[in-house]
Order: sequence, then C-alpha cells, then structure tokens
Amino acid sequence: MIPREHAEHLDRSDPLAALRGRFVIDDPDTIYLDGNSLGRLPVATREMLGALVDEWGSRLVGGWHDWIDLPERVGDELARAALGARPGEVIVSDSTTVNLFKLASAGLDVAHDARAIVTDAHNFPTDRYVLEGLARQRGLELRLFEPDPVEGPQPEDVARACAGGDVGLICLSHVGYRSGALADVEAITREAGVPVLWDLSHSVGVVPIELAEWGVELAVGCTYKYLNGGPGAPAFLYAREELQESLATPIQGWFGQRGQFAMERPYDPEPGIRRFMAGTPPILDLIAVRVGVELVAEAGIASLRRKAVALTDLIVELHDERLAPLGFELASPRDPERRGAHVSLRHDEAWPISRAMIERARVVPDFRGPDSIRLGVPPLYTRFVDVWDAIGRLRDLVERGEQHEVDASPQRVT
Amino acid sequence: MIPREHAEHLDRSDPLAALRGRFVIDDPDTIYLDGNSLGRLPVATREMLGALVDEWGSRLVGGWHDWIDLPERVGDELARAALGARPGEVIVSDSTTVNLFKLASAGLDVAHDARAIVTDAHNFPTDRYVLEGLARQRGLELRLFEPDPVEGPQPEDVARACAGGDVGLICLSHVGYRSGALADVEAITREAGVPVLWDLSHSVGVVPIELAEWGVELAVGCTYKYLNGGPGAPAFLYAREELQESLATPIQGWFGQRGQFAMERPYDPEPGIRRFMAGTPPILDLIAVRVGVELVAEAGIASLRRKAVALTDLIVELHDERLAPLGFELASPRDPERRGAHVSLRHDEAWPISRAMIERARVVPDFRGPDSIRLGVPPLYTRFVDVWDAIGRLRDLVERGEQHEVDASPQRVT
Repeated sequence: MIPREHAEHLDRSDPLAALRGRFVIDDPDTIYLDGNSLGRLPVATREMLGALVDEWGSRLVGGWHDWIDLPERVGDELARAALGARPGEVIVSDSTTVNLFKLASAGLDVAHDARAIVTDAHNFPTDRYVLEGLARQRGLELRLFEPDPVEGPQPEDVARACAGGDVGLICLSHVGYRSGALADVEAITREAGVPVLWDLSHSVGVVPIELAEWGVELAVGCTYKYLNGGPGAPAFLYAREELQESLATPIQGWFGQRGQFAMERPYDPEPGIRRFMAGTPPILDLIAVRVGVELVAEAGIASLRRKAVALTDLIVELHDERLAPLGFELASPRDPERRGAHVSLRHDEAWPISRAMIERARVVPDFRGPDSIRLGVPPLYTRFVDVWDAIGRLRDLVERGEQHEVDASPQRVT
Repeated sequence: MIPREHAEHLDRSDPLAALRGRFVIDDPDTIYLDGNSLGRLPVATREMLGALVDEWGSRLVGGWHDWIDLPERVGDELARAALGARPGEVIVSDSTTVNLFKLASAGLDVAHDARAIVTDAHNFPTDRYVLEGLARQRGLELRLFEPDPVEGPQPEDVARACAGGDVGLICLSHVGYRSGALADVEAITREAGVPVLWDLSHSVGVVPIELAEWGVELAVGCTYKYLNGGPGAPAFLYAREELQESLATPIQGWFGQRGQFAMERPYDPEPGIRRFMAGTPPILDLIAVRVGVELVAEAGIASLRRKAVALTDLIVELHDERLAPLGFELASPRDPERRGAHVSLRHDEAWPISRAMIERARVVPDFRGPDSIRLGVPPLYTRFVDVWDAIGRLRDLVERGEQHEVDASPQRVT
C-alpha cells in the first residue's frame, strides 16, 4: 500500500510547489484533473486583463501602436519558453483548427504530385475533420492509419502509410488526446520524407519540445490547456524559418499583408511568419496567453516535465494497486518516457463513473468516449496528494457502486 | 455661421444623450472620431469580463456548459438588435477575414460553371485579398469594377460586371470604409442573379439592416467598430436559413460537427448555422461583444440612424462653411440617405493634418491613404458639440499651418 505520506513527502520536496499559489483555487476540496482540457486561471490574468481593458478605454485606437505586434511577441515568448523555436517562427492568433487548416493547405500547395494526406485514425477530431475537408477539396485520399491505441503512432506506422510515395502531407499529434501517448517527433519528422504537421496541443507547456533541433517544419497548438490562456484562447502556429517564403496561406488577410496600411495594392504577403496572420488578432486573449506563457517560462519545461512524469507515475502505481482490481485498465503507455501529462484509464462504466466522480467525489476528470477516463495532472498546480486523494475517492465510489446512482444521460460538453 | 449653440441645442434634444455615460471616457478634452476603427469601452464590459474570468477560475471546464452556445446566443441577439436576421442565422466567432473566407468559399462551391468573382476595386483590403486568394486557388478571375469613388457601388455597376453570365459570387461592403457610401443592399442583392456576400463591418450597429427582408444570402461583419466589442473581438457570420444545408465550410472544425463530443466519426456538419464554426470560440471576447450588442439593442437602430444622419449632416454643413475654403473636399455622399456614420474629407495634406489633429488639437480622426481623413461619429457616445469643436479645431490648425510642424513619417497603425 502506497501511503498518503508518500504523496505528502513528494509535495514537500517539489521545487514547483509554490507555483500553485499563482493560480486561483476557489474550492480546495475539489480536485481538478482536467487542466488538459481547460487550464486554471492564473491570479495575474485578472490584473493583466483589467489593465488591458483600461488601456482600450483610455488609449482607444492609439493602443494598436503596442498591440499590433502581440501575435509575434507572444509567439516569440512561447517559442523560447516551450517550443525550442527561433524568433520569428511562431505567431499566436486564430484557433488551432484555423491554423491547422492554413498550414495543411500551405503544405499541400508545395507537395507536387501528392495523392494522399496521412493521419492517425485516432488523431484529435478537429485535425481529422480539417484534413478530410482539404482532401475532398483537392481530390486527395485521406489515409488513416491505425496505431496501437495505447502506444500511439510509431515511426514504422508512418513509414508504412507513406510507402507508396504518394503522400503530400502527414499530420500527427505529439501527445495523443486520448491515450496520452508521446510520439517521437524527431524520428518521425526525419524519416517521413514529406512535411509533417505536428499538433502540439496536448504537449505544449508540459513536454520538452525542440522544433528547431528536431527539424520540424510545421506545427500548431492550443494555449488553453497547459498554457492556461483561458476558454477559447487563440492558438499558435509555427513555420520553420527556412520554409516561410515558400509557403502561402489560403486565407489571405490584411494582417498578413506587407505594408498593411498601404491599402490600395494587391495582396503581397509579409516575408516572415506574419504572412500566416489573417484578420485582426484578439488582443484581450493575447494578454491572457502571455500570462500563461510567462508562468511556464518561470517554471521551466525541464522541471515541469520531471514533475509531470512523477505525477503520472504515481497515478499508474495507484491504479495498479487500487483500481485494476475494480475493472480498470491502463490505457496510456506504462513507460513514462512515452507519455505526456495525462493518464487514461479504461473501464466499461467509464461514463457513469466520470459523472459520479464529479457529482459525488469532487474529482473532475475528463471522459472520452466510449470508455476512457482521462486524468490530467498539469504540474504547475497539481499536487501529489491530489493524485493520491483522487484515486482514493475514485476507488471508494466504484467500490460502493455510486456510478449506478447518478444521472448518466448523454455527454454534452467537456 | 453655424454657432456652437446650435450643436448644444441638438445635444439637449438628443434622446440618446444619456448613453454616453455608459462608456468609459477618461479624457473628455480629447474628441474621439475614430470609433469606426475601434469603438469605445462600455463601462459594463469591465464588470462582465471580470465576472467571466471569475467564472473560468471557479467553474473551470464546467463553465463550458454555459459557454458552448455563446456564439449562437450572441449571434441571435445581434441578429435581432441590428441585422434583421432570424434566430439561427448568425454566429459570432473567428475574424471577419476568416468568416469571409468561409462564406466566399462555400458560395463558390455551389456556383457551377463560374469563371469570375466580382468585387469593388475599393472594397476593404482584407476582402479583396481573401477573394484574390480564392480566385487563384480556383483558377477564377477576380473582376474588380471601379465604382464612383464617392458614391460607391451602384446596382448598374454590378449588373455591368456580371453581364457575361460567368460570375459565381459578388462581394461588396454595405458602407465603404473610405467614402462612407451606403450601398443599396436590397436592390443589388435582388438584381444580381448570383449570391452576394455582404461585408457589414462599417454599417452594423449604426445603419438599418434587414437581411431577411432584403433577401440577403451571405454576410459577415466586425464587432469592434460600432458594436464596441474591443480590439480584435470576434466577427459575425450570417447565412440565410434556407441555404444553410447546401453550404459547406472549407474549414471543417470540431465545433461545427454534429454531436461534437462523439469523437470517433467522420465529419458530419451540424444542420444549422453552427456548421460554420471552426475551432473553440473565444469566450472572454464573446462576453465583451454581448455587452456592445446590448447597448445597441437598448438604443435601437432607428434612433441610432437618426442621430448618425444628424451628426454627419452637421459635419457636411460645417465642412462647407469652414473647411472647403481651406482646400478640403467632401469625399462622402452629400445625400445623407446614401452614407453611413462617417464622413471622409479629402485634402492634399491629409496625412500631416491628421497627425496634427491628434498631436496638437486633441481630435482623433482616421487617416486613409493617400489623401482622406475619416471622421466617424458613433451615435452611442458622440455629441454634436464634439463635431462642432472638432471641426473648429481642425480649421484653426490648418489656418495656422500646424500640419507643417508635426512629424509626418509614414503611417504605421490605425
């Protein structure tokens, strides 16, 4: 039996423990294990947003003098803090979906004689839908390969899917949204032979990423998970510096135009990453993203990763000891080197159990149909005792059969 | 000579006068005539945004239960308050540029045998750039017609541009961003014979719009001008109910998917307007847009229009009396029925004059190259004395030649 004292000890020796105080935690009795869906509110965000709103009120249109470069400035900060990318390679604006559309389209434009787009059949839905749309528009095949559902896409899977030499673009997630499996970005990118567009939504801010060193060409990702940018915060887009000049966005907007305010000329994109901007960027949101990025920069990815591995390790150990006897099964890689910062558990009654966890046990997990419960442990604010207590409460409620006592009508939102 | 007392009298009898108090006005000595670029901050926005941020902090992912429908809910409110559209025809999300791309693409998909897209050579840059990109991708001609630079696009212009029968889509602005000319949406839409995609960015919230009655099929527009949604606030998208089923967004995202959280199926769009959603909508911004929409609803478009006409009439009268002798020329329609809520004045020294207005006279206009100064008079918070004083200050500074004393290096931002 792993005692609670073990978790308490880990918390006492956690060098990141103090960062929890930088987040708003109104209800300490509820254990939040869904920061991989929507990260917590940083305390500083309230103040920074208030200041930005006041700036809008007082500076009015003159505020744009300082706002207009925010997509690149926050992009550069994110590049340095969490992406291993160089200045001028990242912008923050639009949603992950829109950015994925832009980059997939741009990548396909330069993929001559392509007949197929490759992705993982279990890639995040919006990625698959975007690619499905692009494939239809361009008369291409969307080739979905089936990776191991727990271990995720491997270099050999990708090599096999590309064997025919007819692939124009590969799109994969760094960390699988369901299994938490961590793909080997460097190996897959180097061996692919065609551009790989990486979705970093479930890895950014919590897993080491070295886009420059790994030779990654294209990437997008979300800022409202481990970056704590807030609900619907704008996403980021990365395009490798050497490629930018050769890439064209399908959505030609005035914020990507060279000399944006010389308005009477035909479209002529900015030379750098700004060419991937479309319309006016959301300034309030960008300020909130910046706060989140600064917290990640302060903690450092190496420390965050160490703690996330320890937290997910503790989930796995407690699962083996307490949950496996109740019909749970680990649906994430057992090797900590091969998983991100969440763990999926399979159970035949996953949906009612996840409802009971929220309603009866004050533990907030995330259900992913048909049978997975995700437990996310963002290391900026998750304690080891949170994991210990959550697993204890989960075990107790299943032992008591409380999942049969809750309303388990169909899922609406997560 | 029109005396200041005339303006004071108009303010005293203005039924909307009290609404000015609903906006943050930190510096009453500065006259802000650029609300048509970025509207002012409503007092309520600070509080509503603070409440939403707190909701994020306390409800965390559970907040999505109430947030997920905000794009349609705010869309419906906007439809009723300012668009004359029916429930389920409008969503608020993404930028005007991205929404224009979605709808132009969807419209072209159903335009069989089209060989050209038509727009006004002086349409807003982002509209032209988006269309230019779509034309290139699809091997179509982008046919730019030259309307009268002051009076804007007329039904005959459009008929002439479409005479060959090869046009798949027309895209026009309701109010021209430069001239302020108000197009006859109903006449052009009914006579066009092909779908017309209207950009309502410079008319929404200040000009009566009856999309349902006028038979408009497709429209987009901005919320940070007369709707006061804040810098980079999300735009709206309107698609006529009867057409929605036949239209496909090019950006297939998970927020447009039927049964969004049943994640394992191929793309299958929602039946209604939600099919035009792409990624996760920006919730903080949507709350700010809602505040702006509510203010417009409270004032009522008819009252706003009456006041805007009176304000722009006063600019024209004062121009004729005081500015025309100094080399200014009216670059907006003289007929108030044919202009929106801003007036453009041409002058050979427009750029240095606009700098001097800001730096020397505490009047904030908007410069539009090469030679126009725009004076926007959002009726929610602009007073008649603001117009009287601004024109007086403008006349004085040009009489004194102060435009020769300011730094007039190239424009960066507006």
